[in-house]
Amino acid sequence: MDTPLFTFNLKAVENNARAGVFHTAHGDIETPVFAPVGTQATVKTVTPAQLEETGASLVLSNTYHLYLRPGADLVAEMGGLHEFMQWHKPMLTDSGGFQVFSLAAIRKIDPDGVTFKSHIDGSMHRFTPESSVQIQEKLGADITMAFDECADPHDEAYNRAAVDRTHAWLERCMRAKTRRDQALFGIVQGGVFPDLRRESARKVASMDLPGHAIGGLSVGESKTEMHKMIEVVNEFLPENKPRYLMGVGSPEDLINGVLRGIDIFDCVLPTRLARHQSAFTHAGRINLMNAGFAHDKGPIEEGCECYACRTFTRAYIRHLIVAKELLAGTLVSIHNIQFLVHLMSESRQAILAGQFSDFASDFLSRYKTTSKKVSA
Amino acid sequence: MDTPLFTFNLKAVENNARAGVFHTAHGDIETPVFAPVGTQATVKTVTPAQLEETGASLVLSNTYHLYLRPGADLVAEMGGLHEFMQWHKPMLTDSGGFQVFSLAAIRKIDPDGVTFKSHIDGSMHRFTPESSVQIQEKLGADITMAFDECADPHDEAYNRAAVDRTHAWLERCMRAKTRRDQALFGIVQGGVFPDLRRESARKVASMDLPGHAIGGLSVGESKTEMHKMIEVVNEFLPENKPRYLMGVGSPEDLINGVLRGIDIFDCVLPTRLARHQSAFTHAGRINLMNAGFAHDKGPIEEGCECYACRTFTRAYIRHLIVAKELLAGTLVSIHNIQFLVHLMSESRQAILAGQFSDFASDFLSRYKTTSKKVSA
Repeated sequence: MDTPLFTFNLKAVENNARAGVFHTAHGDIETPVFAPVGTQATVKTVTPAQLEETGASLVLSNTYHLYLRPGADLVAEMGGLHEFMQWHKPMLTDSGGFQVFSLAAIRKIDPDGVTFKSHIDGSMHRFTPESSVQIQEKLGADITMAFDECADPHDEAYNRAAVDRTHAWLERCMRAKTRRDQALFGIVQGGVFPDLRRESARKVASMDLPGHAIGGLSVGESKTEMHKMIEVVNEFLPENKPRYLMGVGSPEDLINGVLRGIDIFDCVLPTRLARHQSAFTHAGRINLMNAGFAHDKGPIEEGCECYACRTFTRAYIRHLIVAKELLAGTLVSIHNIQFLVHLMSESRQAILAGQFSDFASDFLSRYKTTSKKVSA
Repeated sequence: MDTPLFTFNLKAVENNARAGVFHTAHGDIETPVFAPVGTQATVKTVTPAQLEETGASLVLSNTYHLYLRPGADLVAEMGGLHEFMQWHKPMLTDSGGFQVFSLAAIRKIDPDGVTFKSHIDGSMHRFTPESSVQIQEKLGADITMAFDECADPHDEAYNRAAVDRTHAWLERCMRAKTRRDQALFGIVQGGVFPDLRRESARKVASMDLPGHAIGGLSVGESKTEMHKMIEVVNEFLPENKPRYLMGVGSPEDLINGVLRGIDIFDCVLPTRLARHQSAFTHAGRINLMNAGFAHDKGPIEEGCECYACRTFTRAYIRHLIVAKELLAGTLVSIHNIQFLVHLMSESRQAILAGQFSDFASDFLSRYKTTSKKVSA
């Protein structure tokens, strides 16, 4: 019996934490899930074969970057993003909005869209809700995102305006959408302001979308504010749709997100940290350049089943780092991605077993208490 | 029935071309063979798993680099080079001589050895034949090289002195050697001077070593001179020992070497070219940055069975290059290594079938005539 596309089946709920399955044309996504980021149609320094071996089931790519280079038409001509980068499991593209607001040099925001200057060559471009949908339809990811406006999280007046614009743009995205094999997610905005978040969540939840995202967090607010906003929003987002916390990716943020009902996460953190020699362990981050690892015959983390940990010593990886060998970035990226992917699959198993509260508090206490000692 | 270590069994000979098997403690090397170079205990940007998939059976690493960083004692402490870098097939280390003469900033050559300044931090060091052997014994490769002096190939007086010194140093290396699981190869020097090359070949051949190398070529002499020297030397090197042409790695040089009786080659060329977007094809090198490949749905080379060609289009690899994604270097390295490894296994099959003359002339005519058209 075929399962209809984009249904979300909850398998277990423990307090607010959920274990589910989201069905897409490129396969099922078991949640909670962490999605590594392939900014320019590649997860940096990692092949799709290596990425698959980490257990990753969902990969994000950036509409802003792909629109500028190599262009959405070229990706479409090559058969779409899955075929172009040879990742045949589910993919997600963002709307391009966040990068326009964070990367592009000059911009003009008006009710119709955003005009911006490419960070690559200074050329001028324009995104509208309609063009964002059209570009994402050419890219062909399974999950697409509505074009939204990301405001400074502490500027209430700006967030008031941005929420209204985001809602108007969401309606235009829904009208512009033509592909039935893509799930368009709406995005809740509202900065750190509970009333705005509630209003935004209610509005976005009312539009019968296959999934919902929380945007505008992990951009400068405190952890307390982030947790509070997730709680406020998730009171209004329906239980039978996946909830995606955008751009969040530290181990402790993932666990805290799952505790509050989040199903999907993405972040460049595991690959960015890897290129700076920093690796996740259950005791906290460690810097593999540390001289203390020069003679260390153990893996990055004992018990980790990633290719890097199954194969190499800390001493070897430290040598690669000191000798400026790029393979170090590949190996630590593989480890860091698998760490987060595995953390989410362990969380899922714990939820299914009704033991996630214990799992989460155990993880958070180990991760916090020893991280200062280990990282140097 | 066990085959004794370091015997070389010739399976077929066609004119001067040979197909053989060299037995080592880490397995058999079928010749002719191309060895990719893992300068700092890693073939740049490629994991051992990816390297094994290219079909590579022998990997070279550099004594000079490993001595400076991370140090031979550390490698020994980690179980030796095979264990350190997790390459469990045969390995070869050079003597450090070539890098001292080409990379190190200041040097003093005396009858006892060479004093040099590290290219990394300017610190002073000294290699002697004895210390080169001791370092290579700590590294633990299957094939080790005698410490030799590399002279300007066109300076006859210098080559006269360097040949004498190389022979004296070879005898000291043989006396210093203690490990029985390592095959020490002697090196023939003599620049572009047939008399010196003959004398050196006769001397080195007389010492009952398990294999012989030709050094001091591919360092500025003409192709005609290189071919002539190989022919001159191979008249005197015994047939029942492998012959290794050091530092030679272009496809046409490999075929021309096999035609003249060479069994083993090594070179950084496939990985160095890869990091400059240049890929081997049977029609010659192509530059994958070329705008003509922007919409190209074909692989780097049709018919190639490497991971990059089985998986990705030229359009995608060009996108990675343009977007400065490091994955491009990994993919083109895999392709270029597999190209040379496969060229040697095809050569072997042709020799076994008695068809290498045709194979070689076909390859050389295709490679030469079209390379100018394809590379841009």
